[in-house]
Amino acid sequence: MCKTHVLSVASAKAPFEKTVIERRALRPHDVLIDIQFSGICHSDIHSAHGEWGGGIFPMVPGHEIAGVVSAVGPEVTKFAVGDRVGVGCFVDSCGECEYCLQGEEQYCTKGVVSTYNALDYDGNPTYGGYSQKIVVTEGFVVRIPDALSLDAASPLLCAGITTYSPLRHWKAGPGKKVAIVGVGGLGHLAIQFAHAMGAEVTVLSRSRDKEAEARSFGADHYYATGEEGTFAALANRFDLILNTVSANLDVDAYLSMLRIDGTLVNVGAPGKPDQYHVFSLIMGRKSLAGSLVGGIRETQEMLDFAAAHGIAPQIEVIRADQVDEAYERVLASDVRYRFVIDMATL
Amino acid sequence: MCKTHVLSVASAKAPFEKTVIERRALRPHDVLIDIQFSGICHSDIHSAHGEWGGGIFPMVPGHEIAGVVSAVGPEVTKFAVGDRVGVGCFVDSCGECEYCLQGEEQYCTKGVVSTYNALDYDGNPTYGGYSQKIVVTEGFVVRIPDALSLDAASPLLCAGITTYSPLRHWKAGPGKKVAIVGVGGLGHLAIQFAHAMGAEVTVLSRSRDKEAEARSFGADHYYATGEEGTFAALANRFDLILNTVSANLDVDAYLSMLRIDGTLVNVGAPGKPDQYHVFSLIMGRKSLAGSLVGGIRETQEMLDFAAAHGIAPQIEVIRADQVDEAYERVLASDVRYRFVIDMATL
Repeated sequence: MCKTHVLSVASAKAPFEKTVIERRALRPHDVLIDIQFSGICHSDIHSAHGEWGGGIFPMVPGHEIAGVVSAVGPEVTKFAVGDRVGVGCFVDSCGECEYCLQGEEQYCTKGVVSTYNALDYDGNPTYGGYSQKIVVTEGFVVRIPDALSLDAASPLLCAGITTYSPLRHWKAGPGKKVAIVGVGGLGHLAIQFAHAMGAEVTVLSRSRDKEAEARSFGADHYYATGEEGTFAALANRFDLILNTVSANLDVDAYLSMLRIDGTLVNVGAPGKPDQYHVFSLIMGRKSLAGSLVGGIRETQEMLDFAAAHGIAPQIEVIRADQVDEAYERVLASDVRYRFVIDMATL
Repeated sequence: MCKTHVLSVASAKAPFEKTVIERRALRPHDVLIDIQFSGICHSDIHSAHGEWGGGIFPMVPGHEIAGVVSAVGPEVTKFAVGDRVGVGCFVDSCGECEYCLQGEEQYCTKGVVSTYNALDYDGNPTYGGYSQKIVVTEGFVVRIPDALSLDAASPLLCAGITTYSPLRHWKAGPGKKVAIVGVGGLGHLAIQFAHAMGAEVTVLSRSRDKEAEARSFGADHYYATGEEGTFAALANRFDLILNTVSANLDVDAYLSMLRIDGTLVNVGAPGKPDQYHVFSLIMGRKSLAGSLVGGIRETQEMLDFAAAHGIAPQIEVIRADQVDEAYERVLASDVRYRFVIDMATL
């Protein structure tokens, strides 16, 4: 066992406070990580505010973890002390079901173990990355390439893989017209990935505010959905629309912008149901889909791809005592584009 | 030009009456067909009742046409007098767009010309199969294999291809678990096709009423969705759910029965929008899709497949003077499973 300082909330919507928890003693395949940076994901806020129900408190959020290995269990083969590593949205899975065997642990039939706000297979609560140390079994740790700084790498562990995986799954690439809806923590990475994959990238945002930045991330085209005529001008245009926005959409209007056999993929989920007319799908064999992060193998692939193509999130590094304020700013969409906590300040 | 007797409605919801129209003089690639049987599709009723707006009256419905070639234009190469042929939902398309070139004329970018209740590219109204003769360009005529009787073949031209095409597109076959929702004109064909393709077929119907017949069509399993516990028992079961019912569904409940990467495909469209929670798609990378009939090449493939596998609709052949009554019975779900008009009775 080892003690570590963490940022925790005692109950839903309570302010963050510095407390101490214990991490488990290293098992044969465990890795002890000194966390240097931890990204703030919008889902941290939903969880810490108890908005998704069933929160386990006290809670230590954080599933965008970047750090350095400081100890390894006796049977660890993948990592050594000093390695630069990351941990994303989950820390264990059954390892035996068809999805685990395919490297799609996020869909584990036994239930993947989330990095925080979950119970592990022994029944112990998991505590996340707003912490100075974490212990994770080596199969759920990925290597951060040297070309990526640790602070910029941390948001890739959730925001990066959440957008990279569906772009790969639905084959964004040369000859494909891809639209990215929303220019936020997820969207600004999606633009970079889709561009690097070779797709023709169109950004759809409510206003013109983010046009210059979107183009700097690799957007070939930019349209403001709040301007009249945008949807008509883009009718039957896209092979793939990746929606990174969690608000309810006019689904039929977005489907109208898809070509035959096109897909509208959602990676953000509004709390209320969406509505659509089945005709919008039938007239063009279109699909509405969703995607949940990505598996460990693909997360490593994504980090290597980001390093090879110079892709990184635009971040604002904050101190540990600024997290409550950062949450407020995320809710006000006042961040370009991702907060990362410097855990040395805890 | 040639005159032909037809069954037409003078206005929305008017009763059918026997009238005479003229079919165009044969163009070089045209085929004149003596229609022997014409199936009644639910969409005929929507159209004749003016429920989809923009109806062109007088209207001669019918897009499930089976007959015999009685004359051909001078440049026709595909057919000869005496050939047994069929015509489905459309009679022309641009022939030049990427979808026409792929044999997916239903998605023609210029707009496919529907068999009735449409304007052809010359601006003339099209009149459908409730008729003794029709003139169609040979590219939109398919051959009916000898193993299929003409009366049973006619519903395949819409109901058959509407279900066959998505089963092929989403790869129903050995090792795949496929659910068919609804046992009606479409559903009872979908069961037969999915079974013949080698899939494990589960039928989902509101009650147990149609269990014996569904099993006779090839269903391996049958569940009544009106019985408590059905959705829970079938959680994460299917690779593909083909929904042949036009009523609004509890989409989230149906999505819960899909495996990871599964697809719920709709071929019937309710007038009101459906609702769904995006989470139902995200938690399993699931898709909601739609499909519209199929192209000419695939329609021929479907007829050949039906002939090879002994697939045919279960039909009730009616006289021309029974069409109004048949419409009432379709609306009351009092048909097992498709009405076919014997055009010799007109």
